[in-house]
Amino acid sequence: MGKYRTTPVKGTSDINPKQMNIIQNMLNIIREVYTRNGFNQIQTPILENIELLTSGDDGDNSKIMFKTLKRGAKLDLSKPNLKEQDLAEEGLRYDLTVPLSRFYAGNINDLPKPFKALQIGESFRAEKPQNGRDREFTQCDIDMFGESSNMAEIDLLLTAFQAYQALGIKNVCIKINDRRILNSLISFAGFSSEQVSKVLVAVDKLDKIGFEGVEKELQDQDFEKEKIRNFLQSIMQINSNGIDDCKKYGCDESIVKNLKEIIDTVAGFICKDYSIIFDISIIRGQSYYTGPVFEACCVGSSFTRAIGGGGRYDNMVEKYVSIPTPAVGFSIGLLPCSILIAENGLCAQNSKKKIAIIYSEDSDKIELMNKKFELMKNFDVCILPESKNFKNMLIRLSNIGYDGIYKFNQSKLMLFGTDIDL
Amino acid sequence: MGKYRTTPVKGTSDINPKQMNIIQNMLNIIREVYTRNGFNQIQTPILENIELLTSGDDGDNSKIMFKTLKRGAKLDLSKPNLKEQDLAEEGLRYDLTVPLSRFYAGNINDLPKPFKALQIGESFRAEKPQNGRDREFTQCDIDMFGESSNMAEIDLLLTAFQAYQALGIKNVCIKINDRRILNSLISFAGFSSEQVSKVLVAVDKLDKIGFEGVEKELQDQDFEKEKIRNFLQSIMQINSNGIDDCKKYGCDESIVKNLKEIIDTVAGFICKDYSIIFDISIIRGQSYYTGPVFEACCVGSSFTRAIGGGGRYDNMVEKYVSIPTPAVGFSIGLLPCSILIAENGLCAQNSKKKIAIIYSEDSDKIELMNKKFELMKNFDVCILPESKNFKNMLIRLSNIGYDGIYKFNQSKLMLFGTDIDL
Repeated sequence: MGKYRTTPVKGTSDINPKQMNIIQNMLNIIREVYTRNGFNQIQTPILENIELLTSGDDGDNSKIMFKTLKRGAKLDLSKPNLKEQDLAEEGLRYDLTVPLSRFYAGNINDLPKPFKALQIGESFRAEKPQNGRDREFTQCDIDMFGESSNMAEIDLLLTAFQAYQALGIKNVCIKINDRRILNSLISFAGFSSEQVSKVLVAVDKLDKIGFEGVEKELQDQDFEKEKIRNFLQSIMQINSNGIDDCKKYGCDESIVKNLKEIIDTVAGFICKDYSIIFDISIIRGQSYYTGPVFEACCVGSSFTRAIGGGGRYDNMVEKYVSIPTPAVGFSIGLLPCSILIAENGLCAQNSKKKIAIIYSEDSDKIELMNKKFELMKNFDVCILPESKNFKNMLIRLSNIGYDGIYKFNQSKLMLFGTDIDL
Repeated sequence: MGKYRTTPVKGTSDINPKQMNIIQNMLNIIREVYTRNGFNQIQTPILENIELLTSGDDGDNSKIMFKTLKRGAKLDLSKPNLKEQDLAEEGLRYDLTVPLSRFYAGNINDLPKPFKALQIGESFRAEKPQNGRDREFTQCDIDMFGESSNMAEIDLLLTAFQAYQALGIKNVCIKINDRRILNSLISFAGFSSEQVSKVLVAVDKLDKIGFEGVEKELQDQDFEKEKIRNFLQSIMQINSNGIDDCKKYGCDESIVKNLKEIIDTVAGFICKDYSIIFDISIIRGQSYYTGPVFEACCVGSSFTRAIGGGGRYDNMVEKYVSIPTPAVGFSIGLLPCSILIAENGLCAQNSKKKIAIIYSEDSDKIELMNKKFELMKNFDVCILPESKNFKNMLIRLSNIGYDGIYKFNQSKLMLFGTDIDL
């Protein structure tokens, strides 16, 4: 045994060659679909200013954020009554949306308006790890800045559906709601505007704890029983009767019309395995959303977590630059999609054949390299020295996806394992 | 002005669509060359155990490492005499080599031996930022575990040359040396084995401060003048007379022979723009190297920093698992290569044409989407609402690489800007 642990940090994962083959293929597919739909790739750093990352939320993100420790002379541990802010220097981003908004604000005079952005990168959240959710995870985001009409939502959602289709994920349902509808229902039931976010936090758990659970959670916060009853009744009514019932509870007709137009237009372009439906229980965690919010899941799969989501966040960019800028984004979660794909054997693997050439100690190096370069025209070619346990080597090579294994002998190749045309 | 800074964290960079197009293309090219040469992609987390990241070095990496602050109840600020280790939880990796060695050690029973690994990912170093060196940077690494013969170096270096060639970078010179040669010269001059690393640190600056500078730095450390003179004389002699002179200063003949064989074999396969030469001043910073070390640069360019490098580190894996495992790696620095490429306009851009379709408020959404899907068969298609300042929009779209800009009008397209065949 060595002196150190060889497992990755808690809540993070290593990706082996077989899994990585799928992941890399997924990334290429998603990037291709996003690009074909006119989104332009950009990249921002993982390290961000803490002030920026916590801007405007209620401290929720500060709790889940990884922060870096100050270094060198900046780390003054002799100071009395040390607080966290005396020790923390930068934050690791918890999503790609906040950094993108900073980027857009900083480059607003050079970028086209509207601007369609594509980002693929790691985000970090110090949450409890669970299946399909790591503390360090890859997001594949598309966002559109400067388009206030619902063409933004339509374009984003149709692009997202194309990405799922290209990945081979069937039966995708995108559930859509509007934060403004929820806000209306909450104030119609009699809650004050300060109470909205607390009510939203409770409703966000509806799919996990049910109506009774939500009722109890709201009661525990000492809200008036009548308000709670009124609010939950409106949710249940809309849940049964559909989106048009929203109008009965104080929702602006134009908001309902806007949402219906998104649903109808998107539904007209997606294939029969796919659906887009109104769902009053969709909230999405982040407090920055201001309008439509969406969540994608795979219907009829044992994997019930969301495989993507997003929404409209019209007020974010204005925090960084004094130009009102509507914005909408959609994010595909790479890990949940890869679990779905692995469980169902869906995604096409790298189509190039992988072959291994085993050489011996007395092989001529120049002849060997010449042979390798010749075969590389058609294959991925791995040259390897022979090993004492040859059978074991064949098994392990086959495990990481090698299709043919050959022995190099006097510039001839002898076949072991599966045969493929050289 | 907004309330927050829109610039990225000091020492890090945003990448705009034009730069990103080059970077993404570079990543695809490098990955393709690495894969074709039989390297298997894996991924490890950015967050690593601090203990692992500092294992076995002299504390050099701890100084440049970003560490995350403990969270929640683990962060006890009431404790007296707080030390850094009371506050730090995890580290951000400073290279891909240490995490890869952990991965290999943890999966040694499932992976083929030798194992050829490919990794592309971000590393972090809290160093002084300079041109071509960010605090957060992308590395493209290939490594080979379990091959003690110089076929490992030959295979890696030929793969690296292919990658530079595929990137369009000409006049690449790889300089090669061997840590064991340096160690021999240092002890031949009379230094003790404890002094070796200090002498190496000084010699590593030879290209920047010259022989006099190195001499002064060693004198400042109170080493005996005679030892310093002996050592620098051996370096100068070898520098003038070539690798064979190493034998005069206590170097083992087999080490010299090994290095010459690497140079001769690699030289036989590279094209005339490329070269591989012995250079006694090549050290490479990391203390984990045990044998040949290499550094790539672009000859005759104004960009003088290294564009890649690596070496043999035969003792690292054994720290994590008690099986002796020789290892060699090569890393291409994405940022320095991208600067070279941008300065010389070298790298082929994405070959797919990008077109923008401008719609108006009264455009029929369904006709517009149908047109978009039709054009997407051949182009990357960005649909955008019209803007008040149309001329400005054309300029900004053209700046991020749009080849054709069309106005959507009653399901017909009218051309603006550059014409391309639709």
